[in-house]
Amino acid sequence: MDFLRPGFTHKDLLNIDDEKLPLLADEVRAVIVDTVKKNGGHLGSSLGVVELTIAMLKVFDPLNDRIIFDVGHQSYPYKILTDRFGQFHTLRMKDGISGFPRRNESPCDHFNTGHSSTSLSAALGYAKARDLLGENRNVIAFIGDASLINGLAFEALNYVHETHTRLIIILNDNRHSISNRVGGFSTVLAELSANTLYRRTKTFFRRHFGAEYRHPYSGNTSLLARARNFLKALARPINIFDKLGIKYWGPFDGHDIPGAIRMMTLAKNYYRPVILHFNTVKGKGLPEAEANPTKYHQVSPAGEVKARTWSEAASDITEELAMKDERIVCFTAAMMTGVKLEKFSRKFPERFFDVGIAESHMLTMAAGLAAGGMRPWVFIYSTFLQRAADQLMHDIALQNLPVVIMVDRAGLSGSDGDTHQGMLDIPWGRPVPNLEIYAPCDEDSLRECMVYASKRNAPTMIRYPRGKIPPAKISPDSHGEGIVKIHDGSNWALLGNGSSVPIMLEVRDMAGREGVDIPAVYDVRRVKPLDTEILGGILGRYHTAAVLEDNYMAGGTGEEIGAFISEHGYGTRLLRFGVPDVCVRHATQEQQRGLYGLTARNIIDTYTHED
Amino acid sequence: MDFLRPGFTHKDLLNIDDEKLPLLADEVRAVIVDTVKKNGGHLGSSLGVVELTIAMLKVFDPLNDRIIFDVGHQSYPYKILTDRFGQFHTLRMKDGISGFPRRNESPCDHFNTGHSSTSLSAALGYAKARDLLGENRNVIAFIGDASLINGLAFEALNYVHETHTRLIIILNDNRHSISNRVGGFSTVLAELSANTLYRRTKTFFRRHFGAEYRHPYSGNTSLLARARNFLKALARPINIFDKLGIKYWGPFDGHDIPGAIRMMTLAKNYYRPVILHFNTVKGKGLPEAEANPTKYHQVSPAGEVKARTWSEAASDITEELAMKDERIVCFTAAMMTGVKLEKFSRKFPERFFDVGIAESHMLTMAAGLAAGGMRPWVFIYSTFLQRAADQLMHDIALQNLPVVIMVDRAGLSGSDGDTHQGMLDIPWGRPVPNLEIYAPCDEDSLRECMVYASKRNAPTMIRYPRGKIPPAKISPDSHGEGIVKIHDGSNWALLGNGSSVPIMLEVRDMAGREGVDIPAVYDVRRVKPLDTEILGGILGRYHTAAVLEDNYMAGGTGEEIGAFISEHGYGTRLLRFGVPDVCVRHATQEQQRGLYGLTARNIIDTYTHED
Repeated sequence: MDFLRPGFTHKDLLNIDDEKLPLLADEVRAVIVDTVKKNGGHLGSSLGVVELTIAMLKVFDPLNDRIIFDVGHQSYPYKILTDRFGQFHTLRMKDGISGFPRRNESPCDHFNTGHSSTSLSAALGYAKARDLLGENRNVIAFIGDASLINGLAFEALNYVHETHTRLIIILNDNRHSISNRVGGFSTVLAELSANTLYRRTKTFFRRHFGAEYRHPYSGNTSLLARARNFLKALARPINIFDKLGIKYWGPFDGHDIPGAIRMMTLAKNYYRPVILHFNTVKGKGLPEAEANPTKYHQVSPAGEVKARTWSEAASDITEELAMKDERIVCFTAAMMTGVKLEKFSRKFPERFFDVGIAESHMLTMAAGLAAGGMRPWVFIYSTFLQRAADQLMHDIALQNLPVVIMVDRAGLSGSDGDTHQGMLDIPWGRPVPNLEIYAPCDEDSLRECMVYASKRNAPTMIRYPRGKIPPAKISPDSHGEGIVKIHDGSNWALLGNGSSVPIMLEVRDMAGREGVDIPAVYDVRRVKPLDTEILGGILGRYHTAAVLEDNYMAGGTGEEIGAFISEHGYGTRLLRFGVPDVCVRHATQEQQRGLYGLTARNIIDTYTHED
Repeated sequence: MDFLRPGFTHKDLLNIDDEKLPLLADEVRAVIVDTVKKNGGHLGSSLGVVELTIAMLKVFDPLNDRIIFDVGHQSYPYKILTDRFGQFHTLRMKDGISGFPRRNESPCDHFNTGHSSTSLSAALGYAKARDLLGENRNVIAFIGDASLINGLAFEALNYVHETHTRLIIILNDNRHSISNRVGGFSTVLAELSANTLYRRTKTFFRRHFGAEYRHPYSGNTSLLARARNFLKALARPINIFDKLGIKYWGPFDGHDIPGAIRMMTLAKNYYRPVILHFNTVKGKGLPEAEANPTKYHQVSPAGEVKARTWSEAASDITEELAMKDERIVCFTAAMMTGVKLEKFSRKFPERFFDVGIAESHMLTMAAGLAAGGMRPWVFIYSTFLQRAADQLMHDIALQNLPVVIMVDRAGLSGSDGDTHQGMLDIPWGRPVPNLEIYAPCDEDSLRECMVYASKRNAPTMIRYPRGKIPPAKISPDSHGEGIVKIHDGSNWALLGNGSSVPIMLEVRDMAGREGVDIPAVYDVRRVKPLDTEILGGILGRYHTAAVLEDNYMAGGTGEEIGAFISEHGYGTRLLRFGVPDVCVRHATQEQQRGLYGLTARNIIDTYTHED
């Protein structure tokens, strides 16, 4: 490493000669590839924006200016180049560097992200704050082409016009969403990319500025005026951004550092909202990633043992059901690989919809299909279902339509951090009328829930965790009961579902080993409606009920059981184990469970202490 | 009435000669104006679409085709003309006609709406269902210009391209949102409206088809082909809809029935997605509504006594606070009149943002402003906050940003029906970390909560109901306590907040009159975090705790209190009064409270029965 060393900050970057910047880019790429291979993480997007990040840090001041990364999985080069090179090897590890921008991690991170398409709204907010407070800073939204098609980004683009403020949008167009770019808007971007503006602009700048290029605000305004007019002329025919009141410049080569620096400098001094359109190559510099950008979008840590996952099981069962029921169609919002629907999409291309990063649209379109006589199955991560909460309520539940919501990555989900935990599907789902919610704990119970959902003429949610599915059956068939007895016990009963079932079984084993009361174990497979008949029987039999939840306890099943106890006068002592009212930081799932006491050790200790 | 009489259906419409249709339009308008003046409701939008609705019912079959109204407050003419003229006088009354499309009301209503911008996604779903099931029907999304700028609508527009299906979009462009149209996209629509296509098309059709106009599929394909080519030529320069793969035809006069019938017939037989752009006049036919479309968007029933509302009080207090704190800025999403921010917007134009129907963007932009050092206050109806649930969680709460969410129309909110009840703000808000939630019950406590929120450097939600604010102080100052004692009592305690406080006071009076135990009354002003210290004291003192909630009980404060009782072994008997797991139908707020037992009578009866 010639440039990167512990203690490297963005100020060091300013001392590197322009012609040596490509060497710095190589070093940054090497650090990213090494770290991600070890720790896992988002590879392709970050490799694609190394040059753009270097250019941004040459032109803008990351402390005073406000650079906001959309989604944020492309922020690794920025993290390395601002003040976190020395810590970067802790990427996504507990107490280490987050995989996304985090304001509490560095004064160079100005807005936390993780979900897509927030950068434009946030940047408009920052820009108006600057105007109202009379500050002097640049506000930059750095956004990818896939994020641009989400409704939130469009709402912000549409509102730029009204804000009468300065804003710089850097469009990182790698022509890939997480997998492929979706929708008509991609045509707009493709047309923009196809024009020859970039080549002509480059020639123009070489000819007119060359070595004697000056800062446009350094007095030589005629040069700036000429550049402006030239760009104005080139940018015709008017495009959609111009119509929205945002000056469009581009497309430019996103891997040409001097070119990017020039355009960003112009944008910095421009008096109106401007979008700089850069074409980049996802996975740039790593041949296998360039060749297969979807596969290398996110990478698992080296040495991770492959085992059957919940997503794979859910996908296989869906395929079986779809063979028998032609009304079944499947949806994903740019997460085909994550939810393992590739096979389904090849087998039933007409019955598969990848809507891009458009969760709200996905749920309402599914509602339309259901109203039209089909049986849509929506596959979505728990955290992203939050973005379609109203569509679940307003379009699906209030109409009681038979949409199945397959909630992947439910519960504590590990190293992606607080923006990606599945904490809310149960608390937010429980009050939604007509909705039934299931949380299976093994493949048999998953199948049972899915078969049931496929027959139910009303909305059903099935939630399952990130990661491996238990290799064997651990809970009996339900025979239609909402709470399934796994084991009898004495004095106390454990109630939980999904990923809590293995923990409950472990508690039982540990209790046996340690001579503590052996708890009964109940699988609360149906979260909603709670099976109060069976619950009543359990409460009448055991003096203590311990409820395990891998979601926020506020609004969870523990509270519902608590209210049931108090309303019906059971007098049962309630113990609750789950996620308290905090932001869940990145760590492994096991570490997270340890943090919140979802461990056999803590449950036994709490019981014996209370008893 | 020459045409409208009880039993009128859309089939009767087919027998009315084209030249007499304007007379029918007059009759429909008269019915709407009469009914809305009596019952209250949405006036302007419905008056603007009478001719378009008549044309749609001439061209499409409302039973076999799928006409989907966006938002739906413009569906009154459709309701009158399909099969509900006889019942229309019951508009928005309990057990009467809903103010929005409802599938359980008529086989002509195909998708329930209420929230904006769902029609395009729903229509795409219906269209794909039709294709997959091999059915033969037209799918029509009828959408206003204001709904088009919401992100959900954009996500759907963007996805049309991928669906390879037929779809007819009818754009009702009255150049008004609920108040004014917002954003850069309005320029796009204005440019489209300004071109002369409409005039030229009209001339063309008069010349080429005239009296001998034939159905395009009736064999005379050359005429159709000629029309197509002509339209194609006219529609250049290409516009945004064309770029999105949607054929654009327009603009046309939305009050010219024969013209609209012709264009809809062409669209019906067109092989690709098509958007028909009609210009209409909001409030058409009622001079005062045409002159003041915002005021006449929604009308209160005649004879309703004007009294100070929660919205007015909240707005006045905000103004006071904003005088003292220049960092305070206010947001609304097209609801300036509803939340009573007109005065604020005039007094502080630089500090007021109406983002249009773009709730998600509003919350994320507010987060940006807060991160940038300002103190944004967001005014939003409880039901519409559902559309920004993830932005509240992901952008505001996880970053612990000082945004104040003023939740108007919280709780049971009356005649707008199930899509407009404020049932979820508490259940969905309680599990959101860093968020504090308040529910004041009179103007003094509202002020207290707002002053506190203005000083808190973290997100705060204040919820208040629709309608009148109690004219006098009914609850003491809190002195920072989360549960405020209003009255001592014997044996039982009532706990509730907001609109439940007057009911609790009534229970106490009724108990006194009837010789029942006089309950203590506690104002649970701070919903989150619950003041467990004071709660513990109450539970230790009374054998029964009755919790009142005007939201869904699932996820509500009653459950939290129930869990607290069971965890700490108080043994207190819990009674809960609130909204069960149902869709809340339209009725007055008082009728709704009656339905769900939120009445003094029911509470007394339940207590004496249980005791």
